[in-house]
Amino acid sequence: MQTEAELLYAGVDGGGTRCRALLADARGRHIGAGIAGSANAFQDARQARISVTEAVLRALSDAGLPSRRISSVVAGVGLAGVNIRSAFERMIEWEHPFRDMQLTTDIEIACLGAHGGASGGVVVVGTGSAGCALVDGEWHSLGGYGFPFADKCSGAWFGLEAVRAVLLDFDELGPGTSLRTLLRDETGGGPLELVEFMSAAPPARFASLAPLVIEAAEDGDTVARGILDEGCAYLSDLILRLKAFGAPSVALVGGLSRRLSSRISADAAACVVEAKRAAEHGALLLAMSASTMSASKTN
Amino acid sequence: MQTEAELLYAGVDGGGTRCRALLADARGRHIGAGIAGSANAFQDARQARISVTEAVLRALSDAGLPSRRISSVVAGVGLAGVNIRSAFERMIEWEHPFRDMQLTTDIEIACLGAHGGASGGVVVVGTGSAGCALVDGEWHSLGGYGFPFADKCSGAWFGLEAVRAVLLDFDELGPGTSLRTLLRDETGGGPLELVEFMSAAPPARFASLAPLVIEAAEDGDTVARGILDEGCAYLSDLILRLKAFGAPSVALVGGLSRRLSSRISADAAACVVEAKRAAEHGALLLAMSASTMSASKTN
Repeated sequence: MQTEAELLYAGVDGGGTRCRALLADARGRHIGAGIAGSANAFQDARQARISVTEAVLRALSDAGLPSRRISSVVAGVGLAGVNIRSAFERMIEWEHPFRDMQLTTDIEIACLGAHGGASGGVVVVGTGSAGCALVDGEWHSLGGYGFPFADKCSGAWFGLEAVRAVLLDFDELGPGTSLRTLLRDETGGGPLELVEFMSAAPPARFASLAPLVIEAAEDGDTVARGILDEGCAYLSDLILRLKAFGAPSVALVGGLSRRLSSRISADAAACVVEAKRAAEHGALLLAMSASTMSASKTN
Repeated sequence: MQTEAELLYAGVDGGGTRCRALLADARGRHIGAGIAGSANAFQDARQARISVTEAVLRALSDAGLPSRRISSVVAGVGLAGVNIRSAFERMIEWEHPFRDMQLTTDIEIACLGAHGGASGGVVVVGTGSAGCALVDGEWHSLGGYGFPFADKCSGAWFGLEAVRAVLLDFDELGPGTSLRTLLRDETGGGPLELVEFMSAAPPARFASLAPLVIEAAEDGDTVARGILDEGCAYLSDLILRLKAFGAPSVALVGGLSRRLSSRISADAAACVVEAKRAAEHGALLLAMSASTMSASKTN
């Protein structure tokens, strides 16, 4: 029989590439961490379940605890894709191995982590892009609709715009761009080789081209500069919209955040703060804030 | 044993949605026609093989001929997707049921049909978009690289740009557009319902939104007008590039051609002519032009 003192907490941050778990004891002290594979609930709910479980099992192992202790874990889980209702429902229906599970989006736990659970906003620019703000206990969400129709200024968006521009250049139906040579070095050929390489490519493969766009823009390429400027104008607007919801400040996080933070507008930059903690810490806050309720419910 | 007089010819036009076959006797008289399902060799080479075979079998049946006569058929086949080398090779490796098969792209047979095999250009604007020209026996090709990175001014491109614009409007991070209401009527909800409906949608589903964009533009919606103008500017440039290769005239064909032909630039419009015949007629020309060679090869 379990007692409250034996409870464990896990904060889980699941994205399209990796899933990270942070384990804490009943008093909230960090005792282990684990990493597993992709966990986008909309793209593949089954894989997301596997990755969440694996990341927590690895964190248990890291803490020197046996796998069976997973049944003592109150998990706070933030996953990419659960903003889509059907994906959320597929995850909620899961007969998970935890004592309890709190589920929300990867963006919301990033926001909780960035501001330690206090009011504030976050913008994530990595493979995808999205923003949200917690203001007086209420959530506001922007973007995060996914590839190929949204996630402007994300890595995947930079890659898609680059491929679009290069194909127009190959046909001499768009302005010349050094991206053509840069992408040829990646994909090794003409337009048809590029298309074959990128066809049905996951967002991450498009995102792998993003650094080329930023470098070409820095080297003065007009087309790349146009893409970068358009992306950063959107990013600035996104930050200011979160501010307008009442967020005292906005943290800019994700793989592209460092390279883009110097390119946003001055009024957007004035709102930006460093994130206090990473998303898995936000997920841990979610787990711990829910624990009293869950303990009373399941004991 | 077969004799030359017993030869049959089939012209086959295979696209992402349908595959059409036109059957002719040894003297080139049309004796039957057949339609089967999708035949995009890049998306699904196996399905393309099935659809090509079915369309020809139906044309044989339509002509009152038994299925076994398929072995007498010299087939000229134009397929979407065979501009990609790997797709072309998968089709060429096929142990097809025909006496002989000549394979090229759906765009080239459209061009052969449009100009009766003479020099000229063609631009196809349907679910996808592409152009090519035959000038003094030499082929020139533009576009046709596919969704989501190319095929500007195609139905799928109009749909993608509409979804992009509507998602920005939902977030109030882009200009307001009546497309938001029009798409809600199609997909029934807010941005997340729209994303769920369109996620992993085939190009044809994006293309189904194209008429909404054109209607909204005609009704004065600024965003829709911007998309339509950008598409038609590309279309005009595409026509003029084919003209610059030396094409005496350019035929504009495909499901969107009638709605877009009045919107191209005056200098582009001056090059445009009506297509003489449909793509399957071009494929039949391909089959018949190859027949002497194939007969001597296979007899």
